Amino acid sequence: MTTVDNRRLLADSPEHSAALADLYRDFTTAGMTPLWRTREGLMPPVPQPKAVPHLWRWKDLYPLAARSGALVPVGRGGERRAIGLGNPGLPGDPYATPTLWVAVQYLNPHESAPEHRHSQSAFRFVLEGEGVWTVVDGDPVAMRRGDLLLTPGWHFHGHHNVSDIPMAWLDGLDIPFVANLDQGFFELGRDQMGDIRTPNRSNSERLWGDPGLTPVAAAGARPASPLMAYRWAHTASALSAQLELAAEGVAGTLVEPGHAAVRFTNPTTGGDALTTLRTEMHRLTARTTTRRARTSASSVWQVFTGGGTVTMDGQTRGLEHGDILAVPAWTEFSLQADDQLDLFTFSDAPVLEKLNLLRTQVGD
Amino acid sequence: MTTVDNRRLLADSPEHSAALADLYRDFTTAGMTPLWRTREGLMPPVPQPKAVPHLWRWKDLYPLAARSGALVPVGRGGERRAIGLGNPGLPGDPYATPTLWVAVQYLNPHESAPEHRHSQSAFRFVLEGEGVWTVVDGDPVAMRRGDLLLTPGWHFHGHHNVSDIPMAWLDGLDIPFVANLDQGFFELGRDQMGDIRTPNRSNSERLWGDPGLTPVAAAGARPASPLMAYRWAHTASALSAQLELAAEGVAGTLVEPGHAAVRFTNPTTGGDALTTLRTEMHRLTARTTTRRARTSASSVWQVFTGGGTVTMDGQTRGLEHGDILAVPAWTEFSLQADDQLDLFTFSDAPVLEKLNLLRTQVGD
Amino acid sequence: MTTVDNRRLLADSPEHSAALADLYRDFTTAGMTPLWRTREGLMPPVPQPKAVPHLWRWKDLYPLAARSGALVPVGRGGERRAIGLGNPGLPGDPYATPTLWVAVQYLNPHESAPEHRHSQSAFRFVLEGEGVWTVVDGDPVAMRRGDLLLTPGWHFHGHHNVSDIPMAWLDGLDIPFVANLDQGFFELGRDQMGDIRTPNRSNSERLWGDPGLTPVAAAGARPASPLMAYRWAHTASALSAQLELAAEGVAGTLVEPGHAAVRFTNPTTGGDALTTLRTEMHRLTARTTTRRARTSASSVWQVFTGGGTVTMDGQTRGLEHGDILAVPAWTEFSLQADDQLDLFTFSDAPVLEKLNLLRTQVGD
Amino acid sequence: MTTVDNRRLLADSPEHSAALADLYRDFTTAGMTPLWRTREGLMPPVPQPKAVPHLWRWKDLYPLAARSGALVPVGRGGERRAIGLGNPGLPGDPYATPTLWVAVQYLNPHESAPEHRHSQSAFRFVLEGEGVWTVVDGDPVAMRRGDLLLTPGWHFHGHHNVSDIPMAWLDGLDIPFVANLDQGFFELGRDQMGDIRTPNRSNSERLWGDPGLTPVAAAGARPASPLMAYRWAHTASALSAQLELAAEGVAGTLVEPGHAAVRFTNPTTGGDALTTLRTEMHRLTARTTTRRARTSASSVWQVFTGGGTVTMDGQTRGLEHGDILAVPAWTEFSLQADDQLDLFTFSDAPVLEKLNLLRTQVGD
Repeated sequence: MTTVDNRRLLADSPEHSAALADLYRDFTTAGMTPLWRTREGLMPPVPQPKAVPHLWRWKDLYPLAARSGALVPVGRGGERRAIGLGNPGLPGDPYATPTLWVAVQYLNPHESAPEHRHSQSAFRFVLEGEGVWTVVDGDPVAMRRGDLLLTPGWHFHGHHNVSDIPMAWLDGLDIPFVANLDQGFFELGRDQMGDIRTPNRSNSERLWGDPGLTPVAAAGARPASPLMAYRWAHTASALSAQLELAAEGVAGTLVEPGHAAVRFTNPTTGGDALTTLRTEMHRLTARTTTRRARTSASSVWQVFTGGGTVTMDGQTRGLEHGDILAVPAWTEFSLQADDQLDLFTFSDAPVLEKLNLLRTQVGD
Repeated sequence: MTTVDNRRLLADSPEHSAALADLYRDFTTAGMTPLWRTREGLMPPVPQPKAVPHLWRWKDLYPLAARSGALVPVGRGGERRAIGLGNPGLPGDPYATPTLWVAVQYLNPHESAPEHRHSQSAFRFVLEGEGVWTVVDGDPVAMRRGDLLLTPGWHFHGHHNVSDIPMAWLDGLDIPFVANLDQGFFELGRDQMGDIRTPNRSNSERLWGDPGLTPVAAAGARPASPLMAYRWAHTASALSAQLELAAEGVAGTLVEPGHAAVRFTNPTTGGDALTTLRTEMHRLTARTTTRRARTSASSVWQVFTGGGTVTMDGQTRGLEHGDILAVPAWTEFSLQADDQLDLFTFSDAPVLEKLNLLRTQVGD
Repeated sequence: MTTVDNRRLLADSPEHSAALADLYRDFTTAGMTPLWRTREGLMPPVPQPKAVPHLWRWKDLYPLAARSGALVPVGRGGERRAIGLGNPGLPGDPYATPTLWVAVQYLNPHESAPEHRHSQSAFRFVLEGEGVWTVVDGDPVAMRRGDLLLTPGWHFHGHHNVSDIPMAWLDGLDIPFVANLDQGFFELGRDQMGDIRTPNRSNSERLWGDPGLTPVAAAGARPASPLMAYRWAHTASALSAQLELAAEGVAGTLVEPGHAAVRFTNPTTGGDALTTLRTEMHRLTARTTTRRARTSASSVWQVFTGGGTVTMDGQTRGLEHGDILAVPAWTEFSLQADDQLDLFTFSDAPVLEKLNLLRTQVGD
Repeated sequence: MTTVDNRRLLADSPEHSAALADLYRDFTTAGMTPLWRTREGLMPPVPQPKAVPHLWRWKDLYPLAARSGALVPVGRGGERRAIGLGNPGLPGDPYATPTLWVAVQYLNPHESAPEHRHSQSAFRFVLEGEGVWTVVDGDPVAMRRGDLLLTPGWHFHGHHNVSDIPMAWLDGLDIPFVANLDQGFFELGRDQMGDIRTPNRSNSERLWGDPGLTPVAAAGARPASPLMAYRWAHTASALSAQLELAAEGVAGTLVEPGHAAVRFTNPTTGGDALTTLRTEMHRLTARTTTRRARTSASSVWQVFTGGGTVTMDGQTRGLEHGDILAVPAWTEFSLQADDQLDLFTFSDAPVLEKLNLLRTQVGD
């Protein structure tokens, strides 16, 4: 062990210091960074996100979106009148978490957002309003209150508002995840909307929207859901049923007492509707408090109806209609419902699950 | 190659004949059978089923079932007033094909069939009538015209007729398959029905019956479907939609022109609803003839509505309401619709698919 | 419940008896069999195989195979000098269990068995000897003592003995399973062997025989193993290692104390080497007794080296070199080793596992 | 479309400009960024990595690592004498690509790197030398020239050099990927190495290192490979075999003419050895040029033996022993061999494949 002793001796000497300084300069020249001089947080004991728990107020967001509707046109270039919500802890692009993008999109009466497609997975969640059809690979899909509408990766899509009133909704995408991995592909579609029809039920719902029924001609697993719309009537019914069944004494229907939840899934696999994003709707009965828990998935939540509070890493905030939360990985998280509280949420859990990285910790 | 020559010389000699006779006698004693003396059909060039294509007439079956209703009680022992349809080519137990069991079950007004469970997978398909609830693991499931009701393996189930009129339906099981493999397990349940409620919608439908929605508390793949009822309203709507979409120019919705079909699937996997049985409903528009095709799966078909003809291995027969077909493996098969023809079918295709044995041949 | 009372009254009357007799006659005419008159064992509480536990002595089998070598040529028609072992409980074709075929194949010096292929999965296990190459889809594979050689379904294969001494081995196939399901397809190949080379290592071993290494050009899951030979040197080494590691205190390496086992697997999936057959080699250290256990899989075992006893459903028999066991489903089974006892075994477990039918019960 | 016209009129007015300026200020206050003012590259037509194609010279790297061996001790805190290679295009931590970490680790004679574990997946690839054992969950694994050694996520590991000469090797991890996703968990192990034995073959190799053999006691899919060492003798043999088989006329063994490659795989699934990293060894015969191709996976390559050139996005550089390449996503890439050229490579392809994001383009 002479070598080690030598080093220790050297460590006290001016010669050692000089040699070290030389070495570090040469490291820099060579594009090398020694692990022992890398920042503390490179491999932390538990996740230490730069993103912070954050709450945006719908009463702030919506008026701003509406003002942009009066001032900024939609068209090629920006492509969408969508305003991204940037986590205060994340510099640069407006990322809600390191993997999730959330934006408020606003479309004026009789306005269109032109067609394009991209490798990023996307969905729209409708807090309120109606009158817009999103056309996904030529299939017009109505957007109405409470609906979840999908745009899986590399599907052409545009939106058009056929009504006389503006409409706003939530856009969710995996833009940060795809950007970090350099997996972005993008292509413009036709400038004019492919289809200006306004059917009540899209082709995808007509083919895939009956429970447990698969078209024989189209059987087989697909990466993302072929069902493009998950209607509020179904979601509301499923949430109510879980709570009623629990009240009738049926076990295993709830996440925890007073807490129902449905996941939007791909009927060809039973897995998540989108390859990289988990989408769910949760309902808390009045005066329910969820268990404090941490998960390594990061998520975004939006209050759909009702009110209550959220506690993130020990800090409690009020929740009102439309409010949006960014919840970084490993944030201690709990919801409290005043009256019945319905929330939409999405997260990067499918990515973590497929890679054996997802961790959860309930309680302390 | 002297040895071979020796044998050929010997083959002409009385000594050889005597030695062979000795050998074959000793083989028999030892429980051995030489491959060269095994029956021709052990390894045929293509499947040569003993089962034959067969057609049972509903107008024959139903009156017999009704007569048994007047003469034979239901209860422990026989367990069910079910009458199995035996393929004329298969001796012994009444098997429709070497893997499939099909029976007509008949329940008098206010009668019950007691609870039991078994490793065999089962379903009921309702040609006509209503008034019976099948109780699956304590969950009463209404049975009505056009519905498919599941009883996956090892689920307790009984049936009770709460109405004033008798009801008959089709039972499909994998009894022959499970019997050939010696995989039969069976257990009696309570003598009294677990639940005499008659809800319109079963718990399983309330939890799993909304399209693409999965209870978060129950997420994860299951071998068989947790959805116990596939309602005719959905099936009919899905079949109509496929034909309408095709008429509107949407590609890939039909099996072939004029031929729509849905598969009943497990929402937790997207695969077949039952582990061993594929279940589907097919619709042919008036005057449609399906392609002549063979598949190595064996199947059973029942005419739900409409009329037409079937050609099996070159022989054509008329088809009327309720008629039941047994189609052995590798039978050349084609359907012809007079008016709109709806048929329910089930087969052993999932077994073959999972074992890489399924083969299909379309045309000559 | 008046109806039921009526029936009970009727049940005592001559009119009832006559009506029943009429009904049963009409059932027969219609090809119908009521469940309540079906044989008792149709849906038994636990499997009640017709096959019986059975033991064939190698000292009986081998001389008979050798005598056939002197008396019967190999060639088109019989195709193979293979002698099937028929379970005494199973009538008709020589089936070891309802799903498994096992035969002794014997090839004279410089003799060939011509090429064919079939949908049935097959393997050879070599108890003793060498000198034969089996040519699988044109790839000559050496057969030597202790080796397992595969012929997955629909691969052409023939065998030729290039040595001056005869060779015998065990053939295992899923013939009964495939026959019961009518899935047999068969095709003759060339009359002359495709390749008379005698390489030490087959192409399949050169491509797939290095542990954990996959050719990038051939990556992706395949139904059956692309590796056609599992060599005894590897099997022996793996069994020894499991026992040595256990002796060194490493947990989880053995099936139970004194009992090592390896499964032959498909390197493209990690699952069983063949789609329908599980193949394994077991080693018991001297004086080891395995737990009494039942499994719903049926199996065949052959003693490779050593001696001991087997207890099947309470009956104990001695085991010697080469002896072959048929173990029907749900047989209580235990092995006892005198000295170190190595056994090869195969079963239908993959079929049952994929269909969620496999059950196991350890102890009483 | 009056609304749009109004906006266009407004767009020329001072009032519009002022209103816009107000809006953008309020957006900023609210943490919102409109999509139409987001940076150009947020959703590019094809990936536009900040990382650049880069080449590090082993003749530069090794002496620097050796100098650090003389000047810097190994121990708690820095944990490893590993020097990370930072892509010149990526600011901050030394990341080779946005998902991949590569470092040169250097261990003096009789030195130890203490035990820890982390959620990050890791491997070591040995360019030259021997004498170090890496102890993975208590199992000492020899590290020798050409070997790939795994440390799947959350396995304790330390390294100790039992020889009288220093040793250097390549460390590969998914640190950037895990860091971007905030999935880092880390835990210290014992300060003293768990096991100072120096076995020739690790326990994991004794259990899992025989081709196609699975311990029955440990059967079942695992996220990452249970085989911790892939030895050069096997890798070399497999690469040679592919080229020889191609020369013998066997189709489908090579990636392209003159280009053999093996993937290191998980024997329990047939998939990649690590959950997030693909690891492969490639061999080009003398004077082979690979097809120009792009893939959306980013990768790192190290020359193991031989020399040649690489062309990345049109720029050609010489390649010598030990040289390391960073290849960002969608870089046009081609290798040219002077003499036989062997290269080790790893990439993030498994992540992309599981998420349906992987794209490849061959030629122009």
